[in-house]
Amino acid sequence: MTDVLLRGGRPWGLDSPADILVRDGRIAGIGPGLTAGRVVDIEGRLVLPGLVEAHCHLDKTLYGGPWVPHSADDTLAGRIANDLARRGELGVPSVERVSALLRTMRSYGTAHVRTHTDVDPGVGLRGVEAVMEAAEATGMDVQQVAFPQHGILTNPGTAELLEEALKSGVAAIGGLDPAGVDRDPLRHLDLVFDLASRYGASVDIHLHDGGTLGAWELELIIERTKALGLGGRVTVSHAYAFGQIDASTQDRLAEGMAEAGVAVATAAVYSFPVPPIKKLRAAGVVVACGHDGIRDLWGPYGSGDMLERAMHVAYRSTFRRDEDIELALEAATYGGARALGLPGYGLAEGDRADLVVVPAGSAAEAVVTHPPRTLVMLGGVVQDG
Amino acid sequence: MTDVLLRGGRPWGLDSPADILVRDGRIAGIGPGLTAGRVVDIEGRLVLPGLVEAHCHLDKTLYGGPWVPHSADDTLAGRIANDLARRGELGVPSVERVSALLRTMRSYGTAHVRTHTDVDPGVGLRGVEAVMEAAEATGMDVQQVAFPQHGILTNPGTAELLEEALKSGVAAIGGLDPAGVDRDPLRHLDLVFDLASRYGASVDIHLHDGGTLGAWELELIIERTKALGLGGRVTVSHAYAFGQIDASTQDRLAEGMAEAGVAVATAAVYSFPVPPIKKLRAAGVVVACGHDGIRDLWGPYGSGDMLERAMHVAYRSTFRRDEDIELALEAATYGGARALGLPGYGLAEGDRADLVVVPAGSAAEAVVTHPPRTLVMLGGVVQDG
Repeated sequence: MTDVLLRGGRPWGLDSPADILVRDGRIAGIGPGLTAGRVVDIEGRLVLPGLVEAHCHLDKTLYGGPWVPHSADDTLAGRIANDLARRGELGVPSVERVSALLRTMRSYGTAHVRTHTDVDPGVGLRGVEAVMEAAEATGMDVQQVAFPQHGILTNPGTAELLEEALKSGVAAIGGLDPAGVDRDPLRHLDLVFDLASRYGASVDIHLHDGGTLGAWELELIIERTKALGLGGRVTVSHAYAFGQIDASTQDRLAEGMAEAGVAVATAAVYSFPVPPIKKLRAAGVVVACGHDGIRDLWGPYGSGDMLERAMHVAYRSTFRRDEDIELALEAATYGGARALGLPGYGLAEGDRADLVVVPAGSAAEAVVTHPPRTLVMLGGVVQDG
Repeated sequence: MTDVLLRGGRPWGLDSPADILVRDGRIAGIGPGLTAGRVVDIEGRLVLPGLVEAHCHLDKTLYGGPWVPHSADDTLAGRIANDLARRGELGVPSVERVSALLRTMRSYGTAHVRTHTDVDPGVGLRGVEAVMEAAEATGMDVQQVAFPQHGILTNPGTAELLEEALKSGVAAIGGLDPAGVDRDPLRHLDLVFDLASRYGASVDIHLHDGGTLGAWELELIIERTKALGLGGRVTVSHAYAFGQIDASTQDRLAEGMAEAGVAVATAAVYSFPVPPIKKLRAAGVVVACGHDGIRDLWGPYGSGDMLERAMHVAYRSTFRRDEDIELALEAATYGGARALGLPGYGLAEGDRADLVVVPAGSAAEAVVTHPPRTLVMLGGVVQDG
C-alpha cells in the first residue's frame, strides 16, 4: 500500500498545521514537512479522528426506505406495542436498511458504532444476525449490545437469549430501567452483571428512570461495577436522572462513576434531560454520545451524522463557548472510543488512520455547522463520498 | 411577465397533485391540467408557501464572516455586557452581514422575516437603518420590531428612541421581561402598548420570565390587548413560562390568549422550555416560530433554514406523528403569516406566489429531513440557488 500524506491540515488538538503520513492503515507520522508517494492537499482544513457513534439502534431502522408515518400513540407502552405489532410487517430487522444506514454513517466520517440490538423471544437473535451481516457487507466496525428492549424478568425467555447472544460473540450486554420497566432492580442488575462477568462482556444499560429512583439505580450500578472489577467496561445510556437531581447528588454520583469507571452515553433527543456533561467531565467521567433511534418505529428523526448529533448535545447543554462545544465533539470521538474500549484510537503516531477532514476553522465551528465532509479516511483508505 | 406553470407538484394541504399557475407574481390557478408558456416540472415534489421567519435578530448577526468564538460568561448579565463591549469592535450592526444572512434565508425559501432590532442610546437607530438598507439591497420582505434589548425604564433614553423608530416607519414595538429585566411590569407594558396604540404598530414582547411570574405577565398582556383592541397584532415571544406552569393554568392562559388575539412565537433554542404548541393550537392561539439569534454575540448557532428550525420546534415538542410535526411547519408558515399580519399568504388562488418546492414525500418528512430546496419562487420569480 502506497504511503499517503494529508498535507497542511490542522489536526484537532494541535496548535499548528501538520502533515499526517499514513502507512499500512496507521498514522506513521504527524508534523510539519513530511513527504510521501501520494499527497492529498487539505490545506487549512480541520482533521478529526474517526467519529464514534456510541448509542444507536441499527436493527430497528427503516433508513433508506420510504417515509413511514409514526403510528404509535404518545405513551411508552404504545410505542412498545406499536413496535412489536409492526416490525414484522415492515421487514425489521433488515440487512438492507441497516447497511444503508451504516454507509451513510461512514460517509459522514463515523468509524465505529455501538448499537443496541433487540433480543427477545419474538425476534430471537435475528436482529443480532442482521446487524452482523450488514457490518460485514459494509466493512464497518460495529459493536453490538444484546438489548432486552422489552424487559428481562418481565419477558420470560429473554435472559436465555441474552446469554446465547453473548455466546455467539456479541460484545456487550444491555439492560433497561431495572426498576421502571423490569420492576426488580436488584435481580435485573445482578443478572446483567453476572452475564457480563462470566462472558467477559461489556455492560451498557438504558436508564430512563428519572429523579431519585434513577439516581439510586446509578448507585447500584456503581456498586456492582466495583464489586466485579468491571471498571472501564460499563456505560449508562441516557441517565436522565442526572439532569433531574440536586447539584450535590450530581457531584456525589459523578465522583462515584469516575472512581468506579462507569461511563455515560447521551443522545440529547427530544426534550429529555441531558446529563451535566461539563460536571461529569470535570469529575473524570467518560462521556460518549450517539443518535439513539434513527428513522424507526420509535421516532422519525436522525441523520446518522455524528457532527450533527454533537451539535444537538452541545445545543441542549447550552454550550456557547468553543471550549464547551468541544466537549460535545469529545463525546463523539475520544469519549466514545473510551466507552467502547477502542484500541489505537486518536491522532497520534501509531493510531489507526481513521480521519475526518472538515472545512471548518475550529472544532466548535465543525460541530455548530456540521458541514459536508471534505474527506473521510478509514483504516488508511479514502472513502467515496 | 410570462405565465409560469409549476407542474405536477403536491401542494401542502391538498389531497392530490396539482399544477400551480403563476401570473403577475400571484397564484392564478391551482388544480389539474393547467397550461402556460413556461412549464417547470416538479413532479411529485411537495410545494409549501414561502417560509416565515417570525423571530430573529438580524442586526446582531456576524453571519458570513469568520467564526467568532463566544466570549461571554454563562450569565445573562455577562452576555449583555459582552454584547455592549464587543458589537462596535466587530462592526455590528453590519449591512453586509445582514444582507448575507437574508440571502441565505431566501435560498432556503424564507419569504418573510420579522426581526427584533436593538434600539438603545448606545446604538441609536443605526441597527434599524442597517436592517432597512439590507432589506432594500436584497429585496427581502423584512418587518422590524424596535427592540429594547437592554430595558426601557432601566435604560434612560430608550423610550424616546423607540418612539422615534416608530415614527420612522418601523412596524412593531418590542418589550423585554417587564418584571425580570425592567423591574416594573405595569409601567413597561403600559408604555409599550401606548406606543403601539398611538402609532398603529404591532407588539412583540420577549418574555423569558418563567413560572408564575411569567404567567402573570401573560395575563397583563392579555388584559392590555383587549383593552386597546389590539387583538391579532400582539405576539409574545419565547413565553418560557408556558412550559413551566401547571396544566390548568396553561389551559386558562391559552383560552385567554386565543380570545384576546395574542400569538406566541417560539424558537426552541438550547434547552429552554418550548410552549405547549398542541394545546395552544387546540385552543386557537396563533403559533409562529423563528431562529432567535443566528451566529451572533449571544450564541454561535443557527443556519437561517426555517425547515431546520421547524425540526427543532417539533423535536423539542417530542412530536413524532406526522400530524404533530406538521404543527411545527404550520408555525413556520401560516402561523408566522398570521402573527406578522401578512395579506395574501398561502397556496390559494390570488395568494402571492411565494412557493418552496421540497423533495419530500410529506410535510413531516420535509421538516425532519429539511433537504436542499428544489426550487424557491418569491413573488412569482424563481430564485437562484
